[in-house]
Order: sequence, then C-alpha cells, then structure tokens
Amino acid sequence: MPQTSLMMTLQFSSSGTPVKIQAKHFLIPGLGRYDHKYSLKLPSKFPKASIFNSHQIPNPILHQPPVNQSVAAIVFGDGSESRLYPLTKRRSEGAIPIASNYRLIDAVVSNCINSNINKIYALTQFNSTSLNSHLSRAYSGAGLGKEGFVEVIAAYQSPEDQGWFQGTADAIRRCLWVLEEYPVAEFLVLPGHHLYKMDYQKVIESHRNRKSDITIVASNGITKRDQDPGVGVLKINTENQVMQYSLKSNKEPVNSAVAETLTRCSDSRYSYIPSMGIYLINRATMVNLLNNHFPKAMDFGTEVIRGALSLGMKVEAYLFEGYWEDMRSIEAFYQANMECIKKLNTGYNFCDRDSPVYTIPRHLPPTIVNDAMITDSVIGDGCILSRCKIKSTVVGMRTKIRDGAIIEDSVIMGSDVYQIEDGRESSVKSTSVPIGIGENTEIRKAIVDKNARIGKNVKIINKDNVEEGDREANGYIISGRIMVVLRSAEIPDNSIL
Amino acid sequence: MPQTSLMMTLQFSSSGTPVKIQAKHFLIPGLGRYDHKYSLKLPSKFPKASIFNSHQIPNPILHQPPVNQSVAAIVFGDGSESRLYPLTKRRSEGAIPIASNYRLIDAVVSNCINSNINKIYALTQFNSTSLNSHLSRAYSGAGLGKEGFVEVIAAYQSPEDQGWFQGTADAIRRCLWVLEEYPVAEFLVLPGHHLYKMDYQKVIESHRNRKSDITIVASNGITKRDQDPGVGVLKINTENQVMQYSLKSNKEPVNSAVAETLTRCSDSRYSYIPSMGIYLINRATMVNLLNNHFPKAMDFGTEVIRGALSLGMKVEAYLFEGYWEDMRSIEAFYQANMECIKKLNTGYNFCDRDSPVYTIPRHLPPTIVNDAMITDSVIGDGCILSRCKIKSTVVGMRTKIRDGAIIEDSVIMGSDVYQIEDGRESSVKSTSVPIGIGENTEIRKAIVDKNARIGKNVKIINKDNVEEGDREANGYIISGRIMVVLRSAEIPDNSIL
Amino acid sequence: MPQTSLMMTLQFSSSGTPVKIQAKHFLIPGLGRYDHKYSLKLPSKFPKASIFNSHQIPNPILHQPPVNQSVAAIVFGDGSESRLYPLTKRRSEGAIPIASNYRLIDAVVSNCINSNINKIYALTQFNSTSLNSHLSRAYSGAGLGKEGFVEVIAAYQSPEDQGWFQGTADAIRRCLWVLEEYPVAEFLVLPGHHLYKMDYQKVIESHRNRKSDITIVASNGITKRDQDPGVGVLKINTENQVMQYSLKSNKEPVNSAVAETLTRCSDSRYSYIPSMGIYLINRATMVNLLNNHFPKAMDFGTEVIRGALSLGMKVEAYLFEGYWEDMRSIEAFYQANMECIKKLNTGYNFCDRDSPVYTIPRHLPPTIVNDAMITDSVIGDGCILSRCKIKSTVVGMRTKIRDGAIIEDSVIMGSDVYQIEDGRESSVKSTSVPIGIGENTEIRKAIVDKNARIGKNVKIINKDNVEEGDREANGYIISGRIMVVLRSAEIPDNSIL
Amino acid sequence: MPQTSLMMTLQFSSSGTPVKIQAKHFLIPGLGRYDHKYSLKLPSKFPKASIFNSHQIPNPILHQPPVNQSVAAIVFGDGSESRLYPLTKRRSEGAIPIASNYRLIDAVVSNCINSNINKIYALTQFNSTSLNSHLSRAYSGAGLGKEGFVEVIAAYQSPEDQGWFQGTADAIRRCLWVLEEYPVAEFLVLPGHHLYKMDYQKVIESHRNRKSDITIVASNGITKRDQDPGVGVLKINTENQVMQYSLKSNKEPVNSAVAETLTRCSDSRYSYIPSMGIYLINRATMVNLLNNHFPKAMDFGTEVIRGALSLGMKVEAYLFEGYWEDMRSIEAFYQANMECIKKLNTGYNFCDRDSPVYTIPRHLPPTIVNDAMITDSVIGDGCILSRCKIKSTVVGMRTKIRDGAIIEDSVIMGSDVYQIEDGRESSVKSTSVPIGIGENTEIRKAIVDKNARIGKNVKIINKDNVEEGDREANGYIISGRIMVVLRSAEIPDNSIL
Repeated sequence: MPQTSLMMTLQFSSSGTPVKIQAKHFLIPGLGRYDHKYSLKLPSKFPKASIFNSHQIPNPILHQPPVNQSVAAIVFGDGSESRLYPLTKRRSEGAIPIASNYRLIDAVVSNCINSNINKIYALTQFNSTSLNSHLSRAYSGAGLGKEGFVEVIAAYQSPEDQGWFQGTADAIRRCLWVLEEYPVAEFLVLPGHHLYKMDYQKVIESHRNRKSDITIVASNGITKRDQDPGVGVLKINTENQVMQYSLKSNKEPVNSAVAETLTRCSDSRYSYIPSMGIYLINRATMVNLLNNHFPKAMDFGTEVIRGALSLGMKVEAYLFEGYWEDMRSIEAFYQANMECIKKLNTGYNFCDRDSPVYTIPRHLPPTIVNDAMITDSVIGDGCILSRCKIKSTVVGMRTKIRDGAIIEDSVIMGSDVYQIEDGRESSVKSTSVPIGIGENTEIRKAIVDKNARIGKNVKIINKDNVEEGDREANGYIISGRIMVVLRSAEIPDNSIL
Repeated sequence: MPQTSLMMTLQFSSSGTPVKIQAKHFLIPGLGRYDHKYSLKLPSKFPKASIFNSHQIPNPILHQPPVNQSVAAIVFGDGSESRLYPLTKRRSEGAIPIASNYRLIDAVVSNCINSNINKIYALTQFNSTSLNSHLSRAYSGAGLGKEGFVEVIAAYQSPEDQGWFQGTADAIRRCLWVLEEYPVAEFLVLPGHHLYKMDYQKVIESHRNRKSDITIVASNGITKRDQDPGVGVLKINTENQVMQYSLKSNKEPVNSAVAETLTRCSDSRYSYIPSMGIYLINRATMVNLLNNHFPKAMDFGTEVIRGALSLGMKVEAYLFEGYWEDMRSIEAFYQANMECIKKLNTGYNFCDRDSPVYTIPRHLPPTIVNDAMITDSVIGDGCILSRCKIKSTVVGMRTKIRDGAIIEDSVIMGSDVYQIEDGRESSVKSTSVPIGIGENTEIRKAIVDKNARIGKNVKIINKDNVEEGDREANGYIISGRIMVVLRSAEIPDNSIL
Repeated sequence: MPQTSLMMTLQFSSSGTPVKIQAKHFLIPGLGRYDHKYSLKLPSKFPKASIFNSHQIPNPILHQPPVNQSVAAIVFGDGSESRLYPLTKRRSEGAIPIASNYRLIDAVVSNCINSNINKIYALTQFNSTSLNSHLSRAYSGAGLGKEGFVEVIAAYQSPEDQGWFQGTADAIRRCLWVLEEYPVAEFLVLPGHHLYKMDYQKVIESHRNRKSDITIVASNGITKRDQDPGVGVLKINTENQVMQYSLKSNKEPVNSAVAETLTRCSDSRYSYIPSMGIYLINRATMVNLLNNHFPKAMDFGTEVIRGALSLGMKVEAYLFEGYWEDMRSIEAFYQANMECIKKLNTGYNFCDRDSPVYTIPRHLPPTIVNDAMITDSVIGDGCILSRCKIKSTVVGMRTKIRDGAIIEDSVIMGSDVYQIEDGRESSVKSTSVPIGIGENTEIRKAIVDKNARIGKNVKIINKDNVEEGDREANGYIISGRIMVVLRSAEIPDNSIL
Repeated sequence: MPQTSLMMTLQFSSSGTPVKIQAKHFLIPGLGRYDHKYSLKLPSKFPKASIFNSHQIPNPILHQPPVNQSVAAIVFGDGSESRLYPLTKRRSEGAIPIASNYRLIDAVVSNCINSNINKIYALTQFNSTSLNSHLSRAYSGAGLGKEGFVEVIAAYQSPEDQGWFQGTADAIRRCLWVLEEYPVAEFLVLPGHHLYKMDYQKVIESHRNRKSDITIVASNGITKRDQDPGVGVLKINTENQVMQYSLKSNKEPVNSAVAETLTRCSDSRYSYIPSMGIYLINRATMVNLLNNHFPKAMDFGTEVIRGALSLGMKVEAYLFEGYWEDMRSIEAFYQANMECIKKLNTGYNFCDRDSPVYTIPRHLPPTIVNDAMITDSVIGDGCILSRCKIKSTVVGMRTKIRDGAIIEDSVIMGSDVYQIEDGRESSVKSTSVPIGIGENTEIRKAIVDKNARIGKNVKIINKDNVEEGDREANGYIISGRIMVVLRSAEIPDNSIL
C-alpha cells in the first residue's frame, strides 16, 4: 500500500527511528512554485466511499516534478585547452571521434537522454563547427520526445557585448536569457568531453531529498584523477557536505591530497575527492550567484563554487563509483579507446542495451572484408578491409585498409566520405596518396585522425622510440610515445616514422 | 528475489540496525522476469560508511518499471460500425477531423505521449488509408523519444490466415507476435476515437498497487453514457472490484441499469458504471486469455473480459471523473466540437499547455481575413476569410469563405489543399464549384466535410426541419437535424437545403 | 513538337538575330492541363533590349514538368506467391533482409529517390506488418524533401468493398482516389522486391519524347529471365514498339521464346524480351483503362496491358541493359547475396556513392571482433564475432558468432535485438539456445533467417545432400541444396543437418 | 559548346539519318573535373540497331551537373548593422519574425529549396542564438532530401585565429575548409534577410551558358533601392557585362547615379543597376580570389568583386524583375508586412502553392475568437482573440488580445509561449502585466515585438507625432513615426504613448 511505502520512505531519510507521520511530512521540499502542480491534489468533489478509488490516491513521493520537465542540462561542448592537441586542431574536444562510430559528446548527451533529461543546451565557441554540425545532425528534430531538444548556443556578438565567452561562468551568465526559457527547477552543468555512464536522476533525487543549493558530483571510484593538475578537489565531511573546493594546480598539494585521500578510509572526519565538474544547481541559486553575488566571476568551479561556499550555501557532494575518464591527455584518450575494445565490462560500454549511446543515425553499407585476420578490435560501419591484419585496434567508419597492411594497438578514425577510386579525382591530385591505409603499411600504437592518407610501405612505429615530438609539418606528432597522424595528413609512400 | 533486495535497502537506510520487514508488503506484482532489473543492485565494492551516500539510497517505490519501458498501448484506429456515417465513408473514425487542426485519434495518442507511454501500436483495417497516413506523418520518426514509436499494424493476409480481423480480440491475437517484440509488463488497450484527457500513469499505478490481472477504466463522471446501447456496463463492489460485465444492447436493461445507477450513492453494495473500453492487462494474462483460454473469442469486452471474470481473475475498475465522449453519434460528434469552442474549461481542452494535443506539424501560411465578424469560433491555420460572418463555428484548415457568407453553429472541416483560382484548373472543371463556401451562402447547424464545394447563394439550413434524411446522392445527409455535407461533395449555386 | 522548340532555343542561344517563332512550336506534348505551368512564360513587361537578359530566356526543353512534381511511383510491396518461402513466412518479399543492412524494397525506393521521384505509394496486403514498419521507420518524415513521402496503403475494408485486393490492377483501381491526390502526369508502377539500379528519369524522358501512352521497361541484359515461368515477354518491333504481351506460364512457349530470342540479333523484324514489370503510364490513361475499359481486370500485365494493346494504344518498350534480379527463387536470392560480396562491380552495388541505397538510419555500436579470420564477406553493423572463421558470407546486423564457429558460403541475417547474456533472461528460457551461432558450429551454403538460435557443435551442411526438403517442424527447409533456417528457429546443440 | 551539342541532339531525335559528330562538340564548359561524370556516356557495348533505344540517347544539354549536387548556398544570417534596431536587439536580422508565422531567413532558405539547392551553409555571429535555433528546428533532419542540409557555421575561435569574422569575405575565407566538403561547381552567396522570390536555377543556367566567372544578381524592378546609401550599384553594358561596382555611401554619388539611371532607357551604352548582394561564383574562382589574389579582403562586394573586375575576370549581371525588399530600415520592414496583407499579388506572396515558404513545422491549437471584427489582416496560429477590432494588422502566433482592444495598421509579433493565466505564475510576478494586449487598449501604426506585455487602457498612438525617438528605457522607440515596442517590454496600464 502506498501509505506504508511513504512511511518507510520517511524512515529511510530520517534515521530509522519510528516516525509519526503528520500532514506536514507530505511537503515536498525545494519545489517552490511547482508545489501546486506536483503536490497532492485531492479531488475537489470528494466521491462517496462506496465508489471511491481507495487505492488510487496518488503517492505524494511521486509528485516531485518529473525530471524531463524540471531539469535542463548545460553542456560545455569545448574548451580552449589544448591537452588533446592535435586532435583538437580543427574541432573541439566534444567532437573527437571515439569507438569507431561516436563522438565524445555523445556519451554525455546519451547520459542525459537515458536520464530523461531532454532539454539540453550546448555552449560552444572554440573550433565549434564540427561539433555544432554533429549535434544538429544527431539530435535535432527527433528522439528527444515532444518538447525535447539539444540546442547549440554558439558564442555570439551583441550590441551589449562584443567579446567571446570568458570562461564557464561567463558563458552561462551571458546565455541566461536563453536558458531561462523553460521554467526548470534546476540546471545540470556538464563537461561535454568526459566518458562515463551516470543516471543523473539519482543525483537529482539526492539533491532534492537533501534540499541542497548545489550538488557536485565527485569521483569515488578510481582515485588517480586527483593526482592530475587541473582537477578540482572537494573536501567533504562524513555527511558528504562540501567544506572546501581546491584546484590542484601543482604537484605539492596533490601529494598532500593523495596522502589525505589514502587516509580517508580510516575514521578521519574529512575526505578529499576529485570533482567531476558536474554541478546540479537550483535555478534561482544560479541566477543569484552569477548576476548578484559574483557578476564578474569567469570560472565556475574556482570562483562561483568557492563563492557559494563562502556565502554559506548548502553544497553537497554526490559520490560516483563508476568508470570515469576526463580525457586529460592524448594518452588518456588512447587508453579509453583501448579499454572499450578489451572486454565488454571494463571501461566504457558502448553496447549496453539498457543505456544505449546515441549518435548520428546513418545508413552506411556493411563493411566489406576481402581477407582479414582481426583480433580484439572493433570495426566501424562501412569499412573496406583488404588482405590485412588488425589487432587491438579501433577501426573507424569508412576506413579503407589495403593489401598487406598490419595495424596493431591503434586507433584509426576513418573517413568522412567514400573516396572513389575510379580515376574520377585523378585529374585533381593524380600523384596524391589516397585516403586510407596503403599496401604493406605497418602501424603500431598510433592514432590516425580522419581522412588521413597513408601511403604504401609506410611504417608508423615510432622507430626512434620518441617520448614527445612535434613533427606537425610532416603530418604527425608524438605524445607519450603514441604516434598521432593529423587529420587529412598525407604520409608519402615508403615513409618510416 | 525482490523482497530480499528491498529488505536490504531498509537496513541501509536505517543505519544498520536490523529491521523486520515482511515480504508481502514489498511485493511488486506482475513483473516476473524484470524483477532483477529494477531491484536494488549492490555496488560490488561496498563503500565505507564515512563516505557513503547515505541519502542517495534509491527509494524502493521508484523501482517499479518505468512506464515508458514497461507498457505498450494498443489503439484500435477504426471500427466497422457506421454510427458516424457519412463522416466515415472514406475514413475510419480515428481519422475524422476535429477542432480545425486535429484528427480524433490525436487525443488518444497524445494521452499516451503525455503519460510517458511511447510504444504505441495502432491496429487498423476499416477504411484505414487516411488514418495510416495521418499517423505516419504525425508520429513517425520524431517526438516519441529514442525507442518510441507509433506503429500501424494494418490487417493483412498470411499463409496461415487469409481473413480480416474478426473483432478486437481476434485482432490482438493475430498481432501478438508483433506486440511481443518488446518485453513490456502490461498492455493498455484503447479505443482510438474517444475524446478525453487521462493520465494513464495513474491507472497503471493503481493496477500495480492492487496487483490486478485486468483493470478496466470506467466513467464515473457524466452518467448519460450508460443509457447508450452498445456501452458495456460494469457491476462493481465497494472495493471497485468488477463483478460482472454486461452490454447494454437494448432499452430495457438500460433502464434497470439507470435505476441501479441512481441508487448507487446510497449505501448499496454494488454500482453500475459504464466501461470506457480501456483495459490494462498484464502481458502474460493477455497471452493466456487469447491463446489458451479463449482462442476463439472475437470481441474483447463481451468474450475475453467476461471469460476472465468467469475464471475468477482479479478484474478491477479504475474510476475516471473527467470529460469523456465516445462519439456514439453524429450529434455527439457535433456537440463535442461545439463544446471545444464555448469555453476553455468545459469539454475537451485542446489548448492545455501541460497536456498538449499533438498532430501533424505543419507550416501553413497564416489565416488571411478580409473583413470578417467572428464570434465564439475557432479558426484553423491557413484559412482565407472574405467579407463574412462566422458564429459558433469550427473553421478547419485552409477553409475558404467568400464574400457575403454567413456561417453559424457549424463545423467546417476545411480543405486538404489550396485550390489555385487563377484559371489553372479551369480547363478541367470549368463549370465546377470551387472548394470552399461560395458568395452569399448561408450555413446553419451543419457539418461540412473536407474539400466540399459549396456554391453561391446556397442555403444549408435544413429548411424542412427534417430529423433524419438520406440525400447522399445530393451530397448530404441529415442526422439529428444536423446537416452533414459529404467529403468533396458539390452543392450547386442557389441550392436551398 | 519538342524538336521545333529545341530549334528555337538554338536560335536564341546562338546570336540574338531575329527569329520567327510560331505559336504552335511551343506546344509541349503530353501534359494536358499543366501546359500553362511549364510552358514558356514571357515576362509581361518586355524589358528594353539594352538591359534584356538575352541569354536568360528559359530553355523550352527544360520546361517539361520536373520529375519530382509530375511522377508518382506505385510500388507493390508484396505478393502472395510463395517462391521465396520460408523467407516470406512472416514477412512480404519486400521486407526480406539483404546484404546485411538492407531490405529488398530499399533498392526500388532508393531508385526512386535517386531519380528524383519523391511521391511513392506502397501498396501492401500480404504479411505486410514488417514491411509497413520498415517503410515507416526508413522513409517517413525525412529525406524525401519537402512534399515528398513514402505512403503505405494497406489493403482495407470499406462499406463499398469488403474484400482484399484481387490483383495488381484491382489494387491500383481501389486506391485511385488516393493516388490522384497530387496532379501528377504519369504513374510509375514498380515491383517492390526486384534488385537493380535504374535512373527512371531516362524512362520518363523516353516516354515523353515518344509521346507514349504506356512505356514498359524490358530487360535487354541477361536473357535468362525469359526462360522463367511467370515472366511476361514482350514482342517488340525495331522501333521498340510493343506488339504483344505474353506470359510464360509453362515450358513449351518459353522454348519457342528462347528460340526467337536467339534469333533476334539477326535481321528479324521482331524481338522477344522479358518485361521487368515496370510500367510508366499517363495518368489519364491509367484511370481510363482501369475504370472505363477494363473495370473487371485484376492483373495489370495480362489484362490491362494486353487490353491497351488491343485498343491500339501506343505501348513502347524501354530497354534496360544492367543487372536485374527478380528474386524468383530461394536460389536466386542466395546468388544475389553472393554476388554483392564477390566484387564491387558485378551484381548489385550497395556502395555506390552516386546512387546510394537508403534504409533505416541506425546508431548501432561498431562490430566487435575477438579473433576472426574473415574472407570475401560483408559484415553488418553491431555484430559480435568471437574466435571464428567466416568465408564468402553475408553477416547481418547484430549477428553473434561464438568461439570455434565456421561459416562459409552463407547468408546470416542477424538479429533484431541484442540479447543480453547476463542471466537476465535465464529465468524465462533457461534451457533455450541463445540467439546467434553457437560454439564450434559449422554452417555451409545456408541462409539463416533473423533471430535464429543455432546451438553448439551444430553442423548445417546438408549432410544428405538433399535437393529439396521440407523440415519446417525442425526449423529449416532445403531449397536447391541451400539450407534455409527459419526466422526465430531453434537448432539444438549437436544437431547435424 | 552547348549549342553544338544541342544540334546533335536534334539530329538524333529527328530520324536517325547519319550525323557527323566531332569530339569537340561534346565539350561542356565550366565543369572541369566533373566532365567525366556529366558528359555523354556512350554505352560500352553498343547495342544493335534493331533493339537500340534510338530515342533514349541522353540529351547532352541535360548533362550539366544537376543543381542539387553542384551548387552550395552560403547565406549570411546576420549583420552587425543596426538598421532594424531594436528588432535586432536580441536577434539577428534573419531571425526577425514576419507575416505571423515566419522568420525573415525563411524566404531565402525557401528560395534555395524551391530552386533545388539543398546544401546550405548559414554563417552567423551577431546575436545568432535565436537564428541558429530557428534554422536547426526548421530545417534539420527533414525536408531537404537525402544529402541535403542547412548547416549553421557560427563564428568560432581556433588556435590559428582568435577573432570574429571581419566581414563577408573574411567569413567565407575562414570557412572555406568546411564549404569545400562537397565537390560543388559553384557557390551562391546570399544575404539572409532580404525578401523576394527567385528561381536561382535560372541564374545558374545563365551563369553556365555564359561561362561567367561571377554572376551578380541586380534588381531591374523598382529602382528606388539605388538611392539607398549602402547599396552597391553595378555599371553594366548592353551585354549585361559588369564594368564597375560602386557603393553608394553618401548622397552625392547617388544623385548622379539616379541621373544616370534615369537615362538608361535611352540609347546609352551603359546602365546603372543596384546589386542585390547575390553572387554566383565558380568554386575555383572563389578560392583563388580569397586565398591568392586578395587574402586580406574583408568585404565581398567592395573588395573581392572590385578586385575580380580589376583582374579582368568575366563578371556578368543577371537582371531580376520581381519584388525585392532588402529591409534597410524599420519603415521598410513595416511596409513589407503591410504589403503582405493588402493583396495576394503585390508584395511577397507567402501563400504561393508553387513556391511555398517553409518554416518550423508546428502543431499549435487553432485560433480562438470570442467576438472580433477583423479587416484586411492576417492571423497567425494559436491566437486568442477576445472582443476586439483588428484592422490592417499582422497578428503573430499565440497573440492574446483582450476585450475592447483596437489594433490598426500594426504588426503584432505574438508570443513564444502560452502564458497560463490560472494564477500559477502569480507568485512570481503577481503585479506584472500579462503577455499580450490588455483590455481596452488601442494600438495604431506600431510594431509590437514578441512577448510584449501591454497593459489595460493603454494607447500606443504616437500621441506627440514624433518622427524619431529613443524611449528604450520605457520599452519602446519611435522610428519613422512607427512605434516599436521592444521584445518582452512591459507597458503599464493606462499608459498613453
């Protein structure tokens, strides 16, 4: 019976001591103006008992505002940091291809969709063209349900403001007039290029149950992230209340953080946990912080969150246990690709039927294989694989691999178009290397960006075992011993790199 | 087992002190194989108490399967009864235009969408072409969210079965192999041409809470419906359990039903309430009833429901208080149109922002008005209104009303296309009356079906005050003193009807 | 006459010297009521010579009605013949999967789209559910341009007619009221399950230039088809005028046809060429033939075309040279799949960038390969291939092939869903064989229909070398020595077939 | 030369008499690399005469590249000029609502669609949010056919370039890497906020026939535009060749231009005609001009076009006779709205069935009218009109006009949302004026921007007959005696403006 459930629920959230339920307990916190809508409505004309739907009384606990009407997501599609350069040379982080068929931002947008959040604003300004195009083709019009949308808000000039967005806080502030179009209760702020699966509905539930002003999601899983410069670290008490927000900008504090982290499983009063950059904030709080309290703040984490703490606002942490990758380096990106190959249950799962990953729907032809030995790899749609060996490799859409090629431990991003090899384009670039991987070419531990043209008898093997190297003029760089061939680069026949 | 999971949850939330909980309280009925999915999953690595999200424990009551994954709707798009003839001459009931911009079936499909039911099967066979086309254009591809669809299942021939659907039960039985594509928990069976607003989620909640086999929605609002021949009447006890299902097929039993109905507010043990033809049925129960118990049953209400009662199944009524119109006659259809004009809060509300009514999205030009006096009317998109008077009238899309016309108390369904009046088509039908309402024509208490061509100086006023009349050869019939001009009919200049 | 118009153009475009133009020269044949629209419009105010766009005068030859506004295609999505049984047990021919990612009907619809025909009616009645669903998901809403559509017209009951379509002619006749919605100039009648690439615009051009009443497309390529019982054969003269239409319904006439065919390269006056069942017919001619001349005709070819010939109408043949497969048998279907593997330029080309084949857009994960040797095969989207050998095989979407499996010379149609193997469904069918191909199973020269469950250590090798065999109760049949495993069939572990 | 080819065709189609054909005749000009594709392909195996489709030889003239594959449009969605301020305060010119249901940019995009151009890039940077949102919702996914798109390219930062677009030429140059994605033959450069109907196919035909490098469309209709400062004026000779491009930036040259214009109907050798800012340019020419010849040019007209002339390129004018409005002032915008009301055949026709205007498809409820006298007005979708008088007014979507209101000679842009008046929002702004037009309010010769809140008993009548006035703090400005109420402005009860 729902009444009993309710009682139990109450007991959950308090502390286990028996509770007498009084009418006021039905109050749903944090809803303000929506109370009228979602609170318990008794029928105006109370029907006679004999025909009353006694079991149909709406359960008050369900009358929180439904997520798909009351939360809007703000996704940062890009950043100006160049930690994934050269993959970001012509695109933003969110638009980097991953796992053959996807772009990084698909993970976050899919999280939203699978969490019933269908009002999604993507704020972009840095190399945003391919990201905007991807979002528009993948999510416009369909799939987000009536009233749902992914709306790209590109940085723009206006009579009032001629400049670019000056940081995450500035970007949100300048877009507030758009973001306020729908009367949502909370905003969910999300980085657009992280890889993880999260049911944001649980964050929202926790936020509402605890009546927080701000909830920050923190990674309680693998702790390596808090050693990373640039990661915000939360100091939380045993109630998961955030006491302090600090940015690990150099080695020294990190080590102390690590030390403290290592001790957090003992009975210490505080823990230090890396923030995932995910913020759930009440709408009024957001407006108040950005416009009234900190109208000059540019960065959200270091300025607005710290400011909120200094104002004594209720800032809570939500602890997330699962896989999380913030793509802080080329190596991390490479590893994330490798992990999606190895097993279905480590790393990020692109094949989960219960929380599918969405992207542009396509109608490519099937992959054509002439004679290939393929081991521990994933193969995107519409590839053409000739007599070749592929091992531990992510092969992207429309990749063409020619006879005798050997690819190992690599990420091949594929091609945007099918190149016709009937001589049609020969007049233009008759001597040029065609898109794809040439005959008898060998590639090991490399990332080959889209539309690259790798010639015949090429070896991309980091022959000099270089750790870091900038050979951009030659079409590639080396980062953490990983060879990265640039987008549309041409590697001539017989090159040995 | 779900019970155990639930018990564990309690123990978490009460801080570890053992709690005695009895299994029966937590049993979630009817889920079978899905239990595993929605039950509490323990994290593999149990976190320490100090950093445990104590307030994040999922609320057990939410672990019912979400409606949008666990319920599929089966909508009957048409029927072979001719109670709305001649509006059904070339279309099924569900495809009849209503309120300028809509079709009848939009009301039911919109109820589904607004209730988060996004798996919708529409079963059709009778004059189904325009209905299929409407559903395909209005609901395909977009708006129902990822995984959602409105799928039209037209009656078809197969090697096993050459015949048409032989009734509602037969139709469902023959489509079961399609309907079982998704592992839903319940089917919601709906007539496609009724007009009402209902949150089906409440029906589902009641059904699950009461662990019913079948829940029938019954109209507890306006009681006139149970006087109507053809309506099923439920005998229910004070617990809303259905004791008997009877069909009012002639006057006599109705009167006794009325008599009983009138006494139901007294302390009688039973009530008699008209069924709305809406059934929520557990998936396994449906399969069992149709294939095993009653493999020859053709009609759902009189055969399957009665059969379920005779088998002692748990059949419950859900009482619905609101506006409900089952479109049992031309007059009822006419009144429903009139009611949507009069006030915003009587009749069916097409303008409700919280439960919008969906239909084909269009990009028609605005309505052009030359010089019109318009009173208590609704005007569809893309009309062209010349010097005319319109009162208490529903004017459909692309209606053209010419100089001097007077329209009162009428339903003008409009036109499918703009007719060009530049002489282009004059070679074909140079002498024909153009689509729309001609100069100085007067129309009172009439329904003018789509694409009708009403000439100049016509009077459609039921001049002889006929109650019922079949003048189909002349392009109209009279039903309940309402003049009904047929689709594409041509009424010559100077006619007085 | 078009020639004359053309001449005028030449004169315009040459040098501006005065030209005598006679009004009759502007006549565009075969357009009837549309003349006004596409004929040469002179600007009402003729501009002065000095600023006259002398070179901008519209070229009369271009003022034929554009194809995308003036031709509607009528596609027969299914037939009641069972030549592809058991692939047609639960679906119509047009819905049979082919080449991993497609359905047969995609070929014809893509031909239409690539020929700028965007008004497409698909007439269905036989096992039509999956075809209707496919068409709705693949082509509704998007891609056909504003004003374009693929509209499914399922057989339906009406007050006037209670029966099913009685043949191709009957089907068109009963749908004429829908087909006439748009004022097209010609109808293009198409079988929905043939495999070929044709630019219908050339057929239309020929039809209009020759002012034909009916143009029939005939296969002038591979002549084996005219040996096939059931194929209509055209007798044409040297002007490609059709003299006679005969149906090869038994062996004897075929042989004589063959004989005649063999002699057609000599200087005979007539040729005999197989009809492809593709008819381009003027709209008025269609209406006239079906309603006035042959109101009882049921079949289009044998009754209406022959009737038109007997009436002396102008019936012409358009000769088509390319690949054409009419899917007359399981073996033909099997061969068509094999041909799409072998080379890119024999058989039907699914990868042609200039005439792409459309289908349902999907966002499946990439194919995951553990350790596979793949030779001369095509691999659909979202497969999971373990340690296996695949040779000369079409592997359909979401196919799961387990360790040790060997597949050769086969067509695996794949699965509609990912089956979760985490034990979730074990309670239901704990002992059942999972979807896909089991461990150490061997399959040779077989067609495995969708969702089949092939156990471990199974051999599907036609061990007794049977030519034809009906083992439907055991989940398969044998046709032309090809093993055909039925849709959703279960082949137990260790079976040897 | 095409003429020669054409002649050939004639000979083919006449009677089969032998024709001398010389190879050079097949040359198709201006196609470069595409020659192979669109040139006449003779069948490899030349069939025997007796069964040769003699009439089916493809007409060489048709083998120009089809427009929908060979031309891409570049639309400038916005500008930083403030001639339409305050309508551009929060949106770019292209996003200004017009004619109730549309945005300005819909006119140009619809021209493209109706001209079979389906590759459309919209370059935006100034107040672009609402424009981007409109384009994405109106044109994404559907309607442009397979391969078609409207792609928004917002100004962005990149490692190479941190700044905004510095002008039209700079914008195109910086986007060339995107614009070159498809191998089009020509680019069509278009201002996004002009109102006119043009079949761009005729411009393309003229451009190709004349083998121009650049074709500029010039308005040969109403000449008032060339008196306007800021309009480019072309000096052309009697062959329509452009001799000079000048910008009318002050009064003096305009007068002389007018003087010259007035004399152009006499037998002068040159004419002066205003450019419409529409340029058709060969792809290679575009790249060459922007990157090689004028890599610093910012403006397209004054720098690139003049530069092309100085280089001796072939620059031609295409003369356009029809209605054209470049929206150079508030008054011009106001007049354009008024003209779309008055008659169907003056001004811009939004209701043309042959060249429809597209926009966001919507499913709004019909307009509800309580008691209104409406004269010479257009009424958008979903309005609620109480007892009011409306004359010579454009009433936008979802406009609410309350009892006693009188609106004349005005443009009411309507509302983005339905405001609920059930007290729900009263807690927020209990004393605020609701969206729409209040009771007994009178509005004459005004533009009321979206979401404005006009109180009761207000008079917006320009009571002091002001010519120009900036009262932005009070929610309105006056421009050319036209009252312009700002977006979301609130005009309190009893105000008299």
